[in-house]
Amino acid sequence: MDIQLTASYTDQYQLAMGQAYYLNNQAHTPAIFDYYFRKIPYEGGYVIFSGLADLLKTIEQLRFSQEDIEWLLAHGFDKSYVKTLENFRFTGSLYAPKEGSLVFPTEPIIRIEGSILETQLIETLLLNILNFQSLIATKAARIRSVASQKTISEFGLRRAQGLGAMAASRAAIIGGADSTSNVAAAQHYGLNSSGTMAHSFVQMHDSELEAFRKFATTNPKNCVLLVDTYNTLTSGVPNAIKVAKEMEERGERLLAVRIDSGDLSYLARKTRQQLDAAGLSYVQIAASNQLDEYVVRSLLHQNAPIDIFGIGTNLAIGKPNGALDGVYKLVMAGGKPRIKVSESIKKTTLPGKKQVYRMYTKEGLLFGADAIAESTEGFPSRMIDPFDAHKSMSCKDIISKPLLEKVMDKGRIVNLIDDIDIIKKEVQEQLQSLPPEYKRFENPHVYKVGISEQIKTERDELFRKYLK
Amino acid sequence: MDIQLTASYTDQYQLAMGQAYYLNNQAHTPAIFDYYFRKIPYEGGYVIFSGLADLLKTIEQLRFSQEDIEWLLAHGFDKSYVKTLENFRFTGSLYAPKEGSLVFPTEPIIRIEGSILETQLIETLLLNILNFQSLIATKAARIRSVASQKTISEFGLRRAQGLGAMAASRAAIIGGADSTSNVAAAQHYGLNSSGTMAHSFVQMHDSELEAFRKFATTNPKNCVLLVDTYNTLTSGVPNAIKVAKEMEERGERLLAVRIDSGDLSYLARKTRQQLDAAGLSYVQIAASNQLDEYVVRSLLHQNAPIDIFGIGTNLAIGKPNGALDGVYKLVMAGGKPRIKVSESIKKTTLPGKKQVYRMYTKEGLLFGADAIAESTEGFPSRMIDPFDAHKSMSCKDIISKPLLEKVMDKGRIVNLIDDIDIIKKEVQEQLQSLPPEYKRFENPHVYKVGISEQIKTERDELFRKYLK
Repeated sequence: MDIQLTASYTDQYQLAMGQAYYLNNQAHTPAIFDYYFRKIPYEGGYVIFSGLADLLKTIEQLRFSQEDIEWLLAHGFDKSYVKTLENFRFTGSLYAPKEGSLVFPTEPIIRIEGSILETQLIETLLLNILNFQSLIATKAARIRSVASQKTISEFGLRRAQGLGAMAASRAAIIGGADSTSNVAAAQHYGLNSSGTMAHSFVQMHDSELEAFRKFATTNPKNCVLLVDTYNTLTSGVPNAIKVAKEMEERGERLLAVRIDSGDLSYLARKTRQQLDAAGLSYVQIAASNQLDEYVVRSLLHQNAPIDIFGIGTNLAIGKPNGALDGVYKLVMAGGKPRIKVSESIKKTTLPGKKQVYRMYTKEGLLFGADAIAESTEGFPSRMIDPFDAHKSMSCKDIISKPLLEKVMDKGRIVNLIDDIDIIKKEVQEQLQSLPPEYKRFENPHVYKVGISEQIKTERDELFRKYLK
Repeated sequence: MDIQLTASYTDQYQLAMGQAYYLNNQAHTPAIFDYYFRKIPYEGGYVIFSGLADLLKTIEQLRFSQEDIEWLLAHGFDKSYVKTLENFRFTGSLYAPKEGSLVFPTEPIIRIEGSILETQLIETLLLNILNFQSLIATKAARIRSVASQKTISEFGLRRAQGLGAMAASRAAIIGGADSTSNVAAAQHYGLNSSGTMAHSFVQMHDSELEAFRKFATTNPKNCVLLVDTYNTLTSGVPNAIKVAKEMEERGERLLAVRIDSGDLSYLARKTRQQLDAAGLSYVQIAASNQLDEYVVRSLLHQNAPIDIFGIGTNLAIGKPNGALDGVYKLVMAGGKPRIKVSESIKKTTLPGKKQVYRMYTKEGLLFGADAIAESTEGFPSRMIDPFDAHKSMSCKDIISKPLLEKVMDKGRIVNLIDDIDIIKKEVQEQLQSLPPEYKRFENPHVYKVGISEQIKTERDELFRKYLK
């Protein structure tokens, strides 16, 4: 099963709207879309922006394949329209923060500029890539935030959502995991990989000791023995100790034992005692079994001597949310600002071509506020709560930097940061600059996102115009 | 971004264990694994087994690519072992129910027979494919079960978990959706596709009426107008009515209007009234916005005149569970039954080569019970609750059929049902044969799965042996 990501990786209505634009001679009308989300997943205080490098590389290479063209013709699309799609290239521009940046609700995270046809045709894949990778990177960052310097290994492939496993592994590592079990993802993205052993390996042998010996002699480097197939403390750990001693005689070292069931805190403590008593204080303890950020925090709060956390399903599918609600909304067309009105002002879009200014303290920490302004007005002196005009904040004398920088110009990538280690470092640096009250799990402080007076005026005028 | 599914689509430990088997001359030892799950998602009464055709085709073609081989060599794997992987083919056999079958916790759904090396190497991809597709097909079946004959369209691509969107669309249609918005999936799997229009199309034009006209003239077939960009009842529907009348003059018909926000029940009723008053009773009403089986049920309970339900995120990611907990456990090795012991008998595996017998009433309906037996013992006369020996049931005079049939023989597919319509029909036929109490959402009746006396004896003996 091979999946080739071509321009048909989209919702059918994009192609239908494209046809309408083409046949009405509107296909080249300039348009600007914003990508943003409304709600932070996990009831958290921040989102890690992830997926940008994948997105840019996909868009730069995006084509309709011959199969796509044939499918469109066979499904009633207009021949002359389909003909133009044969030569489709994205020739627009994208503005975005660095991948790995902290981002917050309401603010534009990507500004997409181009013709209406091309900007519409990339909508679905942009949402598909960014919503998911940001969801997973955010989950991983939460786990990392409570795991201190412990090792985190992602191994959710078996319960991941199909081929979503590939991007999940990438985003998990960007967000803070150290390695993945997913060999295909490790290979595709150049990620660190790791692996231990399964219960079946122990079951295959007549005794657990024999299984451990066979595994250790053939995998002497990075040897991790799974000790809970029969009984962790009376069988698994004593057998692992025997094998560790035999490895020592061969000049080798057992890396770790893994516990995959039972009370991980209790078992890890008892295991540590047994290992230490045998002079094996260098042997690490790995734990797994439905872990997430809350269980990891609890285990470490109990001082469970666990060195490596193996985290599967909850990380790879971004439980409990499973999706980030990012949207892609038209904000300019033919040079004019556009709005999508809703009964709720919260779901009404912010019109116009915009920039986001992130504020900093003199010490270089995050101030806790971003201001959305028209792209030409510069950093505003005051920002207003977009949904409650009674709340506003002076921005005078606050240090700020524009968040959105050009990453694609006329269809060509102009700034690609594709090195996982660099993106990963960006995440940790940005998180370090965010005060702790925004990072706590319970009722985190709300990072302020405001709009300039100019944006507010524009939005309110259009809102009144269309709501009448 | 192209994803080629090769044998590296696996957890690294499978390759490490494979190396141990190879170097210890155990690679050819015969092994049998069972695929089964423990918990029905959505607190429901059944799971729809899905993903089989994809699995079989993937396994039959499974190879290590040259890139895989190079990666393994670069990551410390043994050279002679990697050399053998260059020629790796799966040569084992699989036994399974028809894709689209109802399946229940604890019972083997697939029995995998082959050498330990090859059966281990396909574990992860088997779990990845079946767990996810079964999760989504089950969700779709639940939605279908309350949507009666209404149209269901899946359009979750934008919030799906990356490329998981591909399999999600397939499984959604197998479970009961009528079409998908995902063009790539429609093309790859031969699915029905559909699409309407987005708010951006309306926003692109100076007036909603102009937008509707332009869309209708260029997409006269299957024209669906989105009526909630500004105000559904005072603007969207009246404009859609004008355009529908204009279409009538051209001998065309407006297919539907779509409502994507607000109180769907109220708006659909008012919209129906306006359409009917204009003599447009043939124009259908489509509704979308965070729908799931509960919202659909509630809307139809209120007699909301909705003809088409567009269902996105909740269907495409299988909310709220997001994963089916299917596992792959060794049950035989070298001709001997194997067990994985756990403190909880619920997590202890059922050893041995097994068959599942499904029981039927004389009328051909499901009896509500499956019996797991040794593969050679035939349909047992009595079955025992696997986790509570006090509960048992006589199976005498009950009609039964074996559930697991050979679908792959020595690496070759022997029975491929890959036609989506046939699988979809299988789902509906099986669901029709399941009494309603198993299908209700609230505290569904528990479908009984029991084990034969012979299996129980075997399991208990092994359990005692290893727990001591």
